[in-house]
Amino acid sequence: MQADTTLIDGEFSDRVPVQDRGFAYGDGVFRTMRMVSGVPLHWPLHYQKLSADCAAIGIVCPSAETLMDDITKLFAEEVTERTDSVAKIVITRGIGKRGYAPPAIMSPMRVVSKLAAPTYKNDFYKLGVSLRVCDLTLSKQPKLAGIKHLNRMENVLARMEWQDEQFFDGILRDDTGLVIECTMCNIFARFDNQLLTPLLNETGVAGVTRGQVMQLGNTFSMTVKEQNITMEQLLSADEVMVTNSLFGVFQVTKIADQSWPVMSLSASLRSLIDYDSTH
Amino acid sequence: MQADTTLIDGEFSDRVPVQDRGFAYGDGVFRTMRMVSGVPLHWPLHYQKLSADCAAIGIVCPSAETLMDDITKLFAEEVTERTDSVAKIVITRGIGKRGYAPPAIMSPMRVVSKLAAPTYKNDFYKLGVSLRVCDLTLSKQPKLAGIKHLNRMENVLARMEWQDEQFFDGILRDDTGLVIECTMCNIFARFDNQLLTPLLNETGVAGVTRGQVMQLGNTFSMTVKEQNITMEQLLSADEVMVTNSLFGVFQVTKIADQSWPVMSLSASLRSLIDYDSTH
Repeated sequence: MQADTTLIDGEFSDRVPVQDRGFAYGDGVFRTMRMVSGVPLHWPLHYQKLSADCAAIGIVCPSAETLMDDITKLFAEEVTERTDSVAKIVITRGIGKRGYAPPAIMSPMRVVSKLAAPTYKNDFYKLGVSLRVCDLTLSKQPKLAGIKHLNRMENVLARMEWQDEQFFDGILRDDTGLVIECTMCNIFARFDNQLLTPLLNETGVAGVTRGQVMQLGNTFSMTVKEQNITMEQLLSADEVMVTNSLFGVFQVTKIADQSWPVMSLSASLRSLIDYDSTH
Repeated sequence: MQADTTLIDGEFSDRVPVQDRGFAYGDGVFRTMRMVSGVPLHWPLHYQKLSADCAAIGIVCPSAETLMDDITKLFAEEVTERTDSVAKIVITRGIGKRGYAPPAIMSPMRVVSKLAAPTYKNDFYKLGVSLRVCDLTLSKQPKLAGIKHLNRMENVLARMEWQDEQFFDGILRDDTGLVIECTMCNIFARFDNQLLTPLLNETGVAGVTRGQVMQLGNTFSMTVKEQNITMEQLLSADEVMVTNSLFGVFQVTKIADQSWPVMSLSASLRSLIDYDSTH
């Protein structure tokens, strides 16, 4: 990352204060978004999620205008020129003294970065992706469930379980064996015309694309439900999909020994939420 | 904090790279230690804990010599001059690209800071401290239990529950109601000549001072045990103590409506582990 690809509180810099509570305690939230012609794809949804996550942990989120000013400054040349990039926004509680108690007057820090877009194999679009099942099980913290906060050690440790590139991602379960999500994706399971995705009221991250797919379900005359899904149920689904804000939707065609034929729902959903133009 | 009070990988600086995984994911560990004449009190125990915590999450800890060189550089004038300060060491997995997978070759980052020592009221030493009981309950993650890692949102949210300075700290329970620790301390309960402290195999931070107090128990002919303690049991204890590396040991003389007379064990233990010279 170059110094001219990150704005910290609106100023070009690639370093954050060591006293920032994001560094000290992971005390903040973040988002990564696909950029299309200099604008984050589905920005209103991402801003809504960012501000809701901030509110949930008591951080005053910078205004959408302030963040969009930063984005405009960083991605100006992409408005006319077709490039493939990603914007990352981090909001922390700001600078504090040593100790967990936040200062009485808090000044949140915003970090907006321009990053290279990940490149996905063409096969992921045409043939789907393979998942493994992680050994690490997610802890349950209702006060943080759903929030994309900076405390991501569980995702890191889970991701460190494999190097084999055949696996696109790993399934994370809770300690009772329920399927929750993957390290970087949400997950959906279709049973006939029912589209299910795990409840995230005790753990997990409720992504923006997950919300979009839930809303779009009725376009396909499906009943969409958040509910508990066991590993066994997942493996018996008619179709499995993963979602995130960088690729949209991929079909899962292999989990452990279970495989599925390529179907059309994932590609249709991906197209409906405008991810076809990003690859 | 001034620029000359922090060393980042041995260089004076007060800013860390925005791509550091400590900032991005809380992917690292830390320690705070009381300084006495330019040397961290109980340094061998702290280094042992720091390197064990690093190893537990797959980070190669810098050598004790490297860290002591940093400390010497930062605290040189304190060797001869009596000052009251605290050293904080943060070790992160270092710089990475976007995404949870760590780079194949990792270069951990070390941050060593000189901070002002907290000032404790004289009453805490003479009359003990009061605790409240936190609403937030700790999540259980056996793979992170005991480790002082940088994912500290739970401590932050718990500490945000109160402003009333009469409470020295707040008791954290797990979701089954068992007592685990406080936001910044470990906790002990004495029943006659049994000294109990919660098991930390599923959640919590196993502090250095906790380990010292456990080892010292036999000096007082006590049986020391790690075991499950309910809130009800804690309130019925003959004596309650909290420990951390900045003050050593304080007696707890009040929790909710329950109070205890001042006894001698906390002060004796504090003296035995050399915290009397720090106030």
